[in-house]
Amino acid sequence: MTKRLGKQTVLFSRPVGILATSSVVGPKEGEGPLGSKFDVVLDDPMAGADSWEKAESALVKQSVQLCASKAGMETANFDYLIAGDLLNQSTGSIFGVRDTNVPYLGIFGACSAMGEGLSIGGMLIDGGFADNVLVSASSHFCSAEKQFRFPLEFGAQRPPTSSWTVTGAAAAALTSKVGGVSVLGCTTGKMVDMGVTDANNMGAAMAGAAADTIVAHFKDTGRSPHYYDAIITGDLGYIGSDLLLQMVDKAGYQITHNHKDCGIEIFDRDRQNTLAGGSGCACSGVTFAAHFYEEMKAGRLSKILFVPTGALMSPVSVQQGESIPGIAHAVIIENVGG
Amino acid sequence: MTKRLGKQTVLFSRPVGILATSSVVGPKEGEGPLGSKFDVVLDDPMAGADSWEKAESALVKQSVQLCASKAGMETANFDYLIAGDLLNQSTGSIFGVRDTNVPYLGIFGACSAMGEGLSIGGMLIDGGFADNVLVSASSHFCSAEKQFRFPLEFGAQRPPTSSWTVTGAAAAALTSKVGGVSVLGCTTGKMVDMGVTDANNMGAAMAGAAADTIVAHFKDTGRSPHYYDAIITGDLGYIGSDLLLQMVDKAGYQITHNHKDCGIEIFDRDRQNTLAGGSGCACSGVTFAAHFYEEMKAGRLSKILFVPTGALMSPVSVQQGESIPGIAHAVIIENVGG
Repeated sequence: MTKRLGKQTVLFSRPVGILATSSVVGPKEGEGPLGSKFDVVLDDPMAGADSWEKAESALVKQSVQLCASKAGMETANFDYLIAGDLLNQSTGSIFGVRDTNVPYLGIFGACSAMGEGLSIGGMLIDGGFADNVLVSASSHFCSAEKQFRFPLEFGAQRPPTSSWTVTGAAAAALTSKVGGVSVLGCTTGKMVDMGVTDANNMGAAMAGAAADTIVAHFKDTGRSPHYYDAIITGDLGYIGSDLLLQMVDKAGYQITHNHKDCGIEIFDRDRQNTLAGGSGCACSGVTFAAHFYEEMKAGRLSKILFVPTGALMSPVSVQQGESIPGIAHAVIIENVGG
Repeated sequence: MTKRLGKQTVLFSRPVGILATSSVVGPKEGEGPLGSKFDVVLDDPMAGADSWEKAESALVKQSVQLCASKAGMETANFDYLIAGDLLNQSTGSIFGVRDTNVPYLGIFGACSAMGEGLSIGGMLIDGGFADNVLVSASSHFCSAEKQFRFPLEFGAQRPPTSSWTVTGAAAAALTSKVGGVSVLGCTTGKMVDMGVTDANNMGAAMAGAAADTIVAHFKDTGRSPHYYDAIITGDLGYIGSDLLLQMVDKAGYQITHNHKDCGIEIFDRDRQNTLAGGSGCACSGVTFAAHFYEEMKAGRLSKILFVPTGALMSPVSVQQGESIPGIAHAVIIENVGG
């Protein structure tokens, strides 16, 4: 039976298997430290399309199809498809999966999309509502810059706190078949607003939410940070990660030894000029899909807490002076063997 | 045990009660045929705020608090809050519920938000992941016009196929306690793209998706249209409803006698100049919350299939020449007594 712990955490009655993952990225991501691990590295960030938005949708389409095929399934045979991205009205996801013919649940959690998707997908399977669920998350540097900041042609100078939106799409195929790398439960995040109004400092805006969810997870489960081989946040980057470690420490937990951040892993900041680190729904998506999932399959990591983070802002809310609420969804992922 | 039927339908193991609903609307909605039924009719569509987006968030905040209080609960005691709207990055929902301190799952299904929210919320409760879930859906005529079409100051002429976005916010409180008006299951929609590229004819863009979901529901369950006292679409309006009836008829089902559309119910088109009918996430949201839910509580309706409909477009996708995929999520709602 499913176990509910505390206010925010559920442990599934049985592990929900992650049958396959996929990652499709742009050239810059291919030149980064994880470059050789991605399934597909595109030469052309336009992916042959004639707009940035259509390029993002092309990435989504390719990664969803690839994930289904790696799982040995037809896309149309999945029971649900859950997808999210950063664009207005989820344009990246919707036009990427429009032709899949799968019952569709659209989500919006900003860059926490992969966390929200794995959580909902896991619950749908554990609850007996589905056998197979596809989860998709995407972002594109150019579509995101155009929408949230300035058109690329403007050539805006980037402050050192700014992050670099990852161009990529990731998918994960969840299954009711038990075995291997699996989702065991989740801690669903609450919004936490630190009062940050600078859209070029999302790490700071999200750090409080990440700390809140991670601490809630420890309290709900009674686990110590040592339970996990790695606690992996989505896209806090260098600045947000520093803040996270301080806040979690202040709450009485030490995660310095096993904390990783996908926004730090995906780029080489010195060589790639990515400043505060990578960001975007694809940041945690493709880093999990190509790197951490494979590390778990290979047995080099056994238990992780995967915590994609999101900054719940819109260009309009920022222009109207609103601060940026953060959110973070923690997903318990373990290799259960078999 | 939860029963899965066909590809898209689930029947819950136990009815998921709708403990309370709430509706907060603008003055125009208050002057419509359902005016006296709404919980709150605002005199000022700005709701005291200094922008349309903040006004929409104010409506969300008020309706969520009101729903919790009608359910006899504190907002913070809900296990999950699921919310969706039409604005970029879900601004209406996010800044409306930022302070609730409830685990948050953001959704995007355009105007189908209340259907997607009731479906996911119902599954979370039936799956044992929650005892109480709050679902919220909102839209605002002015924030939607500004974002999707033209600023109001431009004074654009409205073509006769255009609909009128409902200003309002609706919430529903779901509970694991059995009794009364309840969600019994759902049929999750697939995207259907009819090739419509006219953002001023959303009824036509969504009709195919509504027909697809309703027909899938009949096929999955083996039920005939007569099983339901009413089959209620979200915001097809006059044009979309005509198309729906033709398409469902062509598939061998007759729903002319019991089909209703919230976009037709909410306004008096002759008196209120609302052309093709009402639309927006709040259209199905507040019409269900204030009217159909109350009709069911009073015993005048016993079984309904509630089918909120969404047009999955963005201003950018329309400008780039993309057609508009539609989606519709069907929710089985019955008064189980007790």
